[in-house]
Amino acid sequence: MGKPPAERSMVRYDFAARRLYIEVPLDGGTRVELNPAQGHYLRNVLRLSDGAEILVFNGRDGEWRARLSGGSRNFALVALTQTRRQEQGADLHYLFAPLKHARLDYMVQKAVEMGAGLLQPVLTRRTQTERVNIERMRANAIEAAEQCGILAVPGVVEPLKLECVLAAWPQERLLIFCDEDADCADPLTALYAAKRGTPLAVLVGPEGGFDPSERTAILADPSVIRVSLGPRILRADTAAVAILALVQAVLGDWRS
Amino acid sequence: MGKPPAERSMVRYDFAARRLYIEVPLDGGTRVELNPAQGHYLRNVLRLSDGAEILVFNGRDGEWRARLSGGSRNFALVALTQTRRQEQGADLHYLFAPLKHARLDYMVQKAVEMGAGLLQPVLTRRTQTERVNIERMRANAIEAAEQCGILAVPGVVEPLKLECVLAAWPQERLLIFCDEDADCADPLTALYAAKRGTPLAVLVGPEGGFDPSERTAILADPSVIRVSLGPRILRADTAAVAILALVQAVLGDWRS
Repeated sequence: MGKPPAERSMVRYDFAARRLYIEVPLDGGTRVELNPAQGHYLRNVLRLSDGAEILVFNGRDGEWRARLSGGSRNFALVALTQTRRQEQGADLHYLFAPLKHARLDYMVQKAVEMGAGLLQPVLTRRTQTERVNIERMRANAIEAAEQCGILAVPGVVEPLKLECVLAAWPQERLLIFCDEDADCADPLTALYAAKRGTPLAVLVGPEGGFDPSERTAILADPSVIRVSLGPRILRADTAAVAILALVQAVLGDWRS
Repeated sequence: MGKPPAERSMVRYDFAARRLYIEVPLDGGTRVELNPAQGHYLRNVLRLSDGAEILVFNGRDGEWRARLSGGSRNFALVALTQTRRQEQGADLHYLFAPLKHARLDYMVQKAVEMGAGLLQPVLTRRTQTERVNIERMRANAIEAAEQCGILAVPGVVEPLKLECVLAAWPQERLLIFCDEDADCADPLTALYAAKRGTPLAVLVGPEGGFDPSERTAILADPSVIRVSLGPRILRADTAAVAILALVQAVLGDWRS
């Protein structure tokens, strides 16, 4: 962190504030008409009324203090001043086999909190679900960003088969593979061997693990680092947070 | 890990198997009468019938293969052979401000998966809930152990006020304090400075953070190590998995 106390307090204050993600460009004086769902959320869920102030962001123009205006039908807001400059997301892709329902919602939210820069669903032989609701994942990513004050909302891209991911893998991007069978018993040593600043990706498999032929294909890729997440078998959403914590602490922005 | 392939495969097979936690002592030939809830679970949820085999454990006597017997009323099981010896839980206490409902369930399950040896709810000024359902936390701990093949089920103890926890703190137990305001920007360096084998505890505060006077009291304790979990503010259940991952990777059983 190492921020001066004033800025730190501001960030902490911001956390308690109401945040809303909007699509349109933001600048001082911008007036934003809200759609009915947003209006309902602000008026009926957050119980805000005309004149109340919230924070808004669009993932590109930083965070702005904005004032609500308008009556019961046409809710709008006006951007007043910028409270934080836009931050860039980490060059850290999170590749995961989709889970079912609530666990997937949860995993997406957690990956956003942990600072993933892109969410890439990957279909494997043992993937629990073939139908992936991208819009729902996007909504979960936005919700996590609103709650945790993240300005760089990670994109969620269309699912790809594992073989296609590997076939198109760019050599310069390190692929950190969470392998239950990795011999390496020290995941941090494996991560410290990588160069900071390298583009990163993390791959967490489905709860049944990867098929042996899939593991062979992954391990054949020269960009792969294998790491083991300890002797206990973790559920996939737990593994997501655990590996992202290790990666951020060694190679990412948890280390100054 | 470094286990021989045979043992590793057994563990992976076990993960897919049905596991049931029971209270009574286990030995070869032990017959266990199941209570109605357990009988219902095995018969109607898992759809097992007379003669089916499951794995059972009690947190003390290892894991046993057991066969179901009995009719529709009196379901019982007979322990056949031990499949794994009892393992000792880590000397790692997880201290946390209770959250509400589903998030608390989730946090308890995650702490168990991550290998916490004891769960200690701590009441702070900004704790979201004063009423803590210990039985529900115990049920969640058992469920996580059943699902993830953990034989040392961590205990859940009665909630204590933070001041009481600190007043009775044993000097030899390191208290790893997740401090949003920690100056240290490298949590791993702080953890590497600790001696392996030291009794450990991790303290994660409520979502509103600790009150300034609480922070002062915590930091006055000579057993405390402060760590920061990066520049983003994490929800408490995310912080739980993240700090436990770092602790296990540096000081715990993720490192051989």
